[in-house]
Amino acid sequence: MGRRGFHRGLLAGGAVLATGGLTSMSQSSAAADTPPKTAPAGGEVKHLTMYCEKMADGMTGYGLEKGKPSIPGPLIELNEGDTLHIEFHNLLDVDASLHAHGVDYEISSDGTRQSNSHVEPGGSRTYTWRTHAPGRRKDGTWRPGSAGYWNYHDHVVGTDHGTGGLRQGLYGGLIVRRKGDILPDKTFQIVFNDMTVNNKPGHESPNFEATVGDRIEVLSITHGEFYHTFHMHGHRWADNRTGLLTGPDDPSPVIDNKITGPADSFGFQFIAGEGVGAGAWMYHCHVQSHSDMGMAGLFLIAKADGTIPGYDPDAPHHTAPKKSSKEAAEEKKAAEKKGEAQSGKSSQAESGDHAHH
Amino acid sequence: MGRRGFHRGLLAGGAVLATGGLTSMSQSSAAADTPPKTAPAGGEVKHLTMYCEKMADGMTGYGLEKGKPSIPGPLIELNEGDTLHIEFHNLLDVDASLHAHGVDYEISSDGTRQSNSHVEPGGSRTYTWRTHAPGRRKDGTWRPGSAGYWNYHDHVVGTDHGTGGLRQGLYGGLIVRRKGDILPDKTFQIVFNDMTVNNKPGHESPNFEATVGDRIEVLSITHGEFYHTFHMHGHRWADNRTGLLTGPDDPSPVIDNKITGPADSFGFQFIAGEGVGAGAWMYHCHVQSHSDMGMAGLFLIAKADGTIPGYDPDAPHHTAPKKSSKEAAEEKKAAEKKGEAQSGKSSQAESGDHAHH
Amino acid sequence: MGRRGFHRGLLAGGAVLATGGLTSMSQSSAAADTPPKTAPAGGEVKHLTMYCEKMADGMTGYGLEKGKPSIPGPLIELNEGDTLHIEFHNLLDVDASLHAHGVDYEISSDGTRQSNSHVEPGGSRTYTWRTHAPGRRKDGTWRPGSAGYWNYHDHVVGTDHGTGGLRQGLYGGLIVRRKGDILPDKTFQIVFNDMTVNNKPGHESPNFEATVGDRIEVLSITHGEFYHTFHMHGHRWADNRTGLLTGPDDPSPVIDNKITGPADSFGFQFIAGEGVGAGAWMYHCHVQSHSDMGMAGLFLIAKADGTIPGYDPDAPHHTAPKKSSKEAAEEKKAAEKKGEAQSGKSSQAESGDHAHH
Repeated sequence: MGRRGFHRGLLAGGAVLATGGLTSMSQSSAAADTPPKTAPAGGEVKHLTMYCEKMADGMTGYGLEKGKPSIPGPLIELNEGDTLHIEFHNLLDVDASLHAHGVDYEISSDGTRQSNSHVEPGGSRTYTWRTHAPGRRKDGTWRPGSAGYWNYHDHVVGTDHGTGGLRQGLYGGLIVRRKGDILPDKTFQIVFNDMTVNNKPGHESPNFEATVGDRIEVLSITHGEFYHTFHMHGHRWADNRTGLLTGPDDPSPVIDNKITGPADSFGFQFIAGEGVGAGAWMYHCHVQSHSDMGMAGLFLIAKADGTIPGYDPDAPHHTAPKKSSKEAAEEKKAAEKKGEAQSGKSSQAESGDHAHH
Repeated sequence: MGRRGFHRGLLAGGAVLATGGLTSMSQSSAAADTPPKTAPAGGEVKHLTMYCEKMADGMTGYGLEKGKPSIPGPLIELNEGDTLHIEFHNLLDVDASLHAHGVDYEISSDGTRQSNSHVEPGGSRTYTWRTHAPGRRKDGTWRPGSAGYWNYHDHVVGTDHGTGGLRQGLYGGLIVRRKGDILPDKTFQIVFNDMTVNNKPGHESPNFEATVGDRIEVLSITHGEFYHTFHMHGHRWADNRTGLLTGPDDPSPVIDNKITGPADSFGFQFIAGEGVGAGAWMYHCHVQSHSDMGMAGLFLIAKADGTIPGYDPDAPHHTAPKKSSKEAAEEKKAAEKKGEAQSGKSSQAESGDHAHH
Repeated sequence: MGRRGFHRGLLAGGAVLATGGLTSMSQSSAAADTPPKTAPAGGEVKHLTMYCEKMADGMTGYGLEKGKPSIPGPLIELNEGDTLHIEFHNLLDVDASLHAHGVDYEISSDGTRQSNSHVEPGGSRTYTWRTHAPGRRKDGTWRPGSAGYWNYHDHVVGTDHGTGGLRQGLYGGLIVRRKGDILPDKTFQIVFNDMTVNNKPGHESPNFEATVGDRIEVLSITHGEFYHTFHMHGHRWADNRTGLLTGPDDPSPVIDNKITGPADSFGFQFIAGEGVGAGAWMYHCHVQSHSDMGMAGLFLIAKADGTIPGYDPDAPHHTAPKKSSKEAAEEKKAAEKKGEAQSGKSSQAESGDHAHH
């Protein structure tokens, strides 16, 4: 999602919500000698307009513009201390809402029918989410900060717990960063929603593209009825707040497989191909029947020249080959030359891809 | 559960098991300038009598007095170093037992048929649980302490793994504290047992009452056959030993949703309404069919004046509205004036509520 | 598995893979005044030959020698910095592979059909796994090390995710240690694979033998379709990288029950009988129907004299009593006198037992 496309979703005068923009395919941040960019201190008041809208095939999505719903919904990023006002428009013919995990909101922004904070068809409501840095309370104890890999979703459509809304795609990712947290080059949202990935049918799970050396961030979210295990080939992460070790003595387990249940979300960063090189690296649910039913996709991690060793997109066993990575990379470069940030945006709508610069 | 009621369950000469007593509704501990109370060093030898008894509707409960079984059973609190002797009386017409997680016990206190440490109908047996602080072994390695959010349950009724006993309600919470651990104002036991909360039918899950600023402790336990995700609206916790951060650099994730399976237990503390204010804040299992079937209740967090904004207990969508929080608060105050600690006790039997002072 | 038996599985000139050998039953490492042995720095290049072969009853196993497959497959241990080349021979009549979690491998060692890195019937292929210590990247950020409790398995038999291979037993444990990690006296692999433990039928789950004071390591792996909760009686562990606390202020939870899903693996060490004494201590899945169907076994923890209080192997309620611990201990001693390390090896094939010295 390019900066230009993003701005269109902001109210006049609204602050920039995310550090949007496309990463150059040739840049390898982890190989650089300079420290990575980090999150600034928060404290901004931000404004956003979101729409809830029908899509094809019985799906429903959140979007930053009318007529542009996506599944997952737009990735929302905040820094601890920020406040976000979301003007939410319900374009469905049934009640809908926005319920967030992790952030601070008064009961009037709970997004539930039980608290009368949902929105009728055609109506709108402003939800306010606040965040805070960790700090000492008056009594000397520590209050945790808001930083985390969170998610938002409908809590109203279908049932009073939003079971129908979630099934149709009314969910998205929410990341709150702490001052100093390392910023990734690209963020991918991967939502295991019942037996789908990002509501794609089996064997059509999204693929995600990167170049060796890119700092990739994954926001893994689970929704629906079933438990899953998120597994990634050739890469791993620390099972803690950031997914990154604080140093060599950090006791957090390093894992490549994690059990999750509905509404759980976690995130991590990894350096694409680090120690393993380029390749079509699978991610999948490791519950055997789920992967066999097609809950599997690829991280297409290319060399600097755009090639991926051993990857034949036309091979019968590949999970969701739509086009070769090289073709895609060439198209992307062409698009960048023309400054068409919009092409990045449509990619995000399809795959949960979110690029930073 | 008041101190007076609690004492009735102790053997003559027995030490006080828990720091029982009712919290004043108007006190807001986190807003105070003084440090919170903390757990003392353990080392006491404590005695308790417990009964296992039939209840109405096919339920079975543990209790500290004959004729007073509850589901969950009484919350047992120890400090590292304490030893607890439980004289257990089986008032059922089938074999039953007491099996604990987390504490030290010889195989003769295992509470299993396999180790011949169960109790026949009408019989009794003393189970001994020991606890210890962390310490260095002779070889220089660290031995972990007993502190944790644990649970106890039957291991014999129905099957050799207590499947029938657990289903009928034979379980309770066990907290072992380390010297210096912060003490809460109130502790609530929330047990996801198959598709029930604390064995209450769907849509009758217990509500829990607090005032903004109270330091609330939740002991979440799962039992039975299914996995669940414990979710709480508007509040969150650290996913570590205490549920509290040790400081701003603690790498533990801060979460508001956690997958659990049978016999898992974890706990945390939060300040009621911190950063979000008063409200009827939902907790629920986030597995969609489970919440839709009624595994959802409310934290009724009132302002100092006893009111809860946006909460109408007679509204059709509320999960288990029995009486308004204001009515309940007034009844509680009246009871306290009369010194009827027994009223606190009956509240615990219904809801797993356990108040400290 | 004795050092001699192990060597037979190595290529000529291959380095020693593990610190194999049998522990004396009378040694109690934790009671000793001397620090425990710790893992050395890695950096060796190791070679191993593995076979994938049919067994009785429709099972299939990995083995270090032809005609000696076992379920679980051989436990593979590495130190951070080691490289392991595995010459893998597929003796099945269908395609098979070796896919590892946790370690570094190029896409050509992924062990998947999708990457064309599987092996046809009768064929062979060398898989290369590399490991690395934690270190700082050029950009100043920390790269996590490879240390962890991992696993390997087939990814090809039955389906493109190895569902058939896993069901039939094509899995094993993989431990990568960091320099300074404490070495155990014995390691046991316990794999919850669908409704079996190590593919043993219900009520025939393996028992594991130790003496009070032994430092026991458990590598818990889950495979298949279902979630489980791993529970152990009378003992507990820290829920972090090593399962051991780094010190008294380590915020990791100490637990005795943990939810896991397919391909999750974790490990821990405990001192047999510490604070609780000798006994037939149960381990089991705590999902009630799973334990009732027989996913339960025993840690037979004997006193120094070989006796186990309260344990009658002929009692009807014991889970898988094949022979008394004393008999087994006497047989083992006799075998050790004769220097028949092979007897230790057959024990591993049956139970996932792996002894160090």
